[in-house]
This record gives sequence, structure tokens and C-alpha cells, in this order.
Amino acid sequence: MQIGLVVGTVVSTKKEEDLRGLRFLLVRELDQDMRQTGKLVVAVDAVGSGEGEVVLYASGSSARQTAATKDRPVDTVIMAIVDEIEVGGDRRFVKV
Amino acid sequence: MQIGLVVGTVVSTKKEEDLRGLRFLLVRELDQDMRQTGKLVVAVDAVGSGEGEVVLYASGSSARQTAATKDRPVDTVIMAIVDEIEVGGDRRFVKV
Amino acid sequence: MQIGLVVGTVVSTKKEEDLRGLRFLLVRELDQDMRQTGKLVVAVDAVGSGEGEVVLYASGSSARQTAATKDRPVDTVIMAIVDEIEVGGDRRFVKV
Amino acid sequence: MQIGLVVGTVVSTKKEEDLRGLRFLLVRELDQDMRQTGKLVVAVDAVGSGEGEVVLYASGSSARQTAATKDRPVDTVIMAIVDEIEVGGDRRFVKV
Amino acid sequence: MQIGLVVGTVVSTKKEEDLRGLRFLLVRELDQDMRQTGKLVVAVDAVGSGEGEVVLYASGSSARQTAATKDRPVDTVIMAIVDEIEVGGDRRFVKV
Repeated sequence: MQIGLVVGTVVSTKKEEDLRGLRFLLVRELDQDMRQTGKLVVAVDAVGSGEGEVVLYASGSSARQTAATKDRPVDTVIMAIVDEIEVGGDRRFVKV
Repeated sequence: MQIGLVVGTVVSTKKEEDLRGLRFLLVRELDQDMRQTGKLVVAVDAVGSGEGEVVLYASGSSARQTAATKDRPVDTVIMAIVDEIEVGGDRRFVKV
Repeated sequence: MQIGLVVGTVVSTKKEEDLRGLRFLLVRELDQDMRQTGKLVVAVDAVGSGEGEVVLYASGSSARQTAATKDRPVDTVIMAIVDEIEVGGDRRFVKV
Repeated sequence: MQIGLVVGTVVSTKKEEDLRGLRFLLVRELDQDMRQTGKLVVAVDAVGSGEGEVVLYASGSSARQTAATKDRPVDTVIMAIVDEIEVGGDRRFVKV
Repeated sequence: MQIGLVVGTVVSTKKEEDLRGLRFLLVRELDQDMRQTGKLVVAVDAVGSGEGEVVLYASGSSARQTAATKDRPVDTVIMAIVDEIEVGGDRRFVKV
């Protein structure tokens, strides 16, 4: 999994039938110091996350292992909202 | 998933039997500012998209989760046509 | 999928039993202008391709979705020989 | 698999139901000289590892092949704690 | 698949139960001129290979398609020992 920041949304009306009702979010990968790295991905939201939140996302076939995404053509899913990140005893992030 | 721009087509007559009838499109990855990045991929079209359109594509085993691609040897599928992309309250892309 | 040029062959006699009879080809990734990029991969041939041909190859579990590769420990397969590539109305490649 | 150093932890209370009880660890990839490379990943712990330990982690669908992670939306798992790494007859790492 | 050189070994006693009896080898990716590139991976040996040998390795779910690795949490397997590599009519490698 990667840590990411939800930065936006993608809207699509013409899409594979199975995708109806899913929310597509733009997510930018974060490093351990909460800096945005260059990688950008579109992920399906499975936990009610929204813009500005720090999340965990999973890729590949693992992205289809949530209730929302089972058997659907999606390769990235937000499966957790991050409360806290700790590195070497230091809190690097605390959700407010 | 990634956001991409359909830039061309690939034609093949000699191919694995299961691939008959599929359309192969050349897609270039886009970033959140709709700039073309260096990555180029060949994707199967599952939603009737064409050259010049902004699309979402999925990779890996997830690319086989559409009606068109089930059990076929394809690793990338266009599963949605993008209508709108919003980042931090700004519309970065609107389909015309 | 990626577009690739078949540049060579790999021979192995001591290998997993299931791999007997498969041909391993060296493939170099091509961009939309038919330039060889740095990436090199070893792919199983599923369509009778050979050195000097421009091909499409699929990666990951999708590489096991051909008759030749089903249930075998291979992660890349050549599943089509390219006849023509068109970008923005221009023919970038035509097979001769 | 990759060799990694466990450098921190990620805590999440709002997450996909199936993830309850799993520990998420921050892991930084190591090279053969035990230097930390730039890549950072969040992995589920399947072997009781903790901060400061050198581990092996697996990615993709293989990350779901442990008792702890079966059928869950996780794409990276720590499946072994490293005791010793040997390169060209030299011990590069010995667990103390 | 990729061509690799076996450069070392990784030993682990505390690991997922299913991994008992498997050998973990350090493999460095080779290009078509047999130069070691920067990428290093830990692979399970399925063909009796050892340090100094040139091998083929497969990644992802395909790494679980050997007798040794079926259903186990491993994402890279050595599935062939290379005898010969030929590029453009030149032998670039012959096993001695």
C-alpha cells in the first residue's frame, strides 16, 4: 500500500456498467514526511474519504477485495483513512 | 487507474484467437494538469472511446474484468470516458 | 500492453517442467515513434513471431491467458504481431 | 520480494471491515549493502516484525497468500524476518 | 520475465509457515549485454540454481505457478537457468 493525499475527483458518465455508483478520486502519493511525490493515481473510494484526507490505497488485484470493488475493472482502491503515522518514535502525521 | 489521452490505434491481424474483435488504442498518460507524461500504453477499448478523448484505464488482472476482455490476454483496458476532472475546487478538464 | 521489437532469443534446457516447448524471445519496448526505449523483457511467443518483428506483449497474470501459457510460470507473452500503428492520422509503422 | 527495513507504523481506525486487527508498518527498501533506497511502502505484518528489523516483503496478489491477509485488500505483506544476507561469500547482514 | 545473475542468498528462520524449505536468492537484473543494472530482487529458486548463474525469473502471480511456490506468499521465482542468449545473430552469453 501507499500513503496518499486525496487531491481531487474524476467524473465519468460513459463507463463500464459495473462501475456505476463508484466514486473516483485523484490521489497523490506521499512520502514519510508527508511530501507529495510526483505519482498521481485515480482510486475508487471504499471508506467514505474525501478531498484533503490522508489515506492508504492498495493496487492491483488487491483493489478488488473490497465490498465496493469486487469483480470490477478497477486497479486502485482507498481502503483506509490514516489517523496517525509514526517514524522512529516521532509522529509525522496526526489527523485533526 | 490512470488518466490518459487516446492518441492513436494499433492494428494486428495475426494474434491470439481470443483477441478477435477487440480494438487496440494507443494511450498516453496525463497528469492532473492534463499534460502528457512520457508513459505510453496500448489499451483495449471497452467503452467506445476514440482518438482525442480523455479516458480512464485500468491495468493488470483488473483489465480483464470487463465484458469485452474477460479471460483474454490483455493487461490494460479503457473502462471510462472522462467528463470532468476537479482538483482543489478548480475544474482542470471538462469534456466538450 | 506495450509495443516491442523482437531482438533476440533465450535458450534454457534446465527449467520448470511446464515450460517445455515454449520459445523465449528478447523484446525491447518501442515508443510511438518506433524508437527503442531502455526496457528489455523476456517474453513467451504465442503467435509465431520472430526476430525483427514488431509485436504487442502483455504482462502479469494476463500473460497466462493464452493457450500456450495457461497455468505456467510466465509473466510476459507476445499475443499479437503488429501490422500498422497510426498516431494523429499519421502512419508511424506499416509491416512490410 | 524485496529486502526492507521497518521504519514506522501507520494507524487507521476508519477502514475496510476486513482489515480489523492487521498491523500496518512503514517499510523502506534496502539494497544489497543495506542502504535505504528511496522507495517507501506500507506493508501488513504477518510474522510479528517491528521497527528496526530487516524483513522480506512480497507484493501484489502474493501479499494475500498468508493466513493474516487472505482475501483482504492489501497488496504488500511482510512474510519473513531476515537473519542473514550473504553476497559473493561476504556476510552483508547478520541479525543481532 | 527478466534475465538475472544470482549474486547471493537470504536466510530467514522466522517466516510465514508455508515458506519452510524454500531457498531465497538475491538476483540482480541483467541487460542484453549481460551488464548488471541497478535492480535487485529476492527470488525463490525452483530449478536448483545457485550463486553465479544466469537465470530467468518471473514476477507477480506467475511466480506462484511452480510446484515449489504454489499458493505461497512469494512474488518472484527463478523458473529457468539460461544456456544461451542470442541478439541479432550474435551470441551474447553461453553457459560454460
